[in-house]
Amino acid sequence: MHRDGLARATTKQIARAAGYSEATLYKHFEDKTELFLAVLHERLPSLAGLLAAEPDGSLRDNLVAIAARTLAFYHDSYPIGASLFSEPRLLAAHRAELERRGAGPHKPVDGLTGYLRDQQRAGRIRADADCAAAARLLIGGCLQHAFLDTFAQREYDPAQAQQRAAALVDTLLAGLR
Amino acid sequence: MHRDGLARATTKQIARAAGYSEATLYKHFEDKTELFLAVLHERLPSLAGLLAAEPDGSLRDNLVAIAARTLAFYHDSYPIGASLFSEPRLLAAHRAELERRGAGPHKPVDGLTGYLRDQQRAGRIRADADCAAAARLLIGGCLQHAFLDTFAQREYDPAQAQQRAAALVDTLLAGLR
Repeated sequence: MHRDGLARATTKQIARAAGYSEATLYKHFEDKTELFLAVLHERLPSLAGLLAAEPDGSLRDNLVAIAARTLAFYHDSYPIGASLFSEPRLLAAHRAELERRGAGPHKPVDGLTGYLRDQQRAGRIRADADCAAAARLLIGGCLQHAFLDTFAQREYDPAQAQQRAAALVDTLLAGLR
Repeated sequence: MHRDGLARATTKQIARAAGYSEATLYKHFEDKTELFLAVLHERLPSLAGLLAAEPDGSLRDNLVAIAARTLAFYHDSYPIGASLFSEPRLLAAHRAELERRGAGPHKPVDGLTGYLRDQQRAGRIRADADCAAAARLLIGGCLQHAFLDTFAQREYDPAQAQQRAAALVDTLLAGLR
């Protein structure tokens, strides 16, 4: 599905690549849609893992760690996730499945908003800051990196991700004025 | 292509919807890929239009206007743009075509970075700010909105886009500390 695209990959090819017969594949998955959703759900890390913060860590260090994990997550899931949008039927099935699980692509922004509000209550973020907008800027900055890398088919580089995470977080913390 | 997805839409259906014969369609477009690329390129607004700033406008007002246009642009192009990722062959063709035109999805971030650096030289942005990271946060925040709206199949709302643009810009200008 990664190599040939979701639309072109056939269950016959997938079964062959996995070393099974197509009949065996159909014993476990009703169709290609169900197989694709299973791959997506297995690959998506938990939200708790993405937003884990060290209780003793500084606000800045925790945000850099969160941004670095978000960069890795989007880099890994962007190509296969984006291909959902080529088939409205597949997108609707995926959305319904996520809703059943209480999950969805809004979770990183919502989760980070909650973390920032906790930090705001603790006095580490100025009282009049818009934590939801801040979460969207940071998660969006990570998404933008993944989008451009996927478009250019660039490999993921952990050291570069760390630098990118730090640049986004430091800029967001300090502001432009 | 929007309704049924890129993979499922046939040139026969497309010709019928446009009120032409399939033969006429093939007089103008070699195949579905070429037709899709033509749609994408016709719909993409120019970078100059996206980043236009009023010479007399304040930094804040110009950034809000840029963000509002970026929100509209991504909202319009996300579904059809994302579907490129379902077919590596289509993505490669699109990338080659954009390179020939000196265009590409990195242009909004690069263009905004240039604008912010001009403002920095004029003393309206602090001297040690990372303008590239700031551009990525703002353009990324817009991309994140479009991603979630497209996923949920929500309609574009210009008044809401204006509010979202203002929230992103004000948060980026002031920072969290």
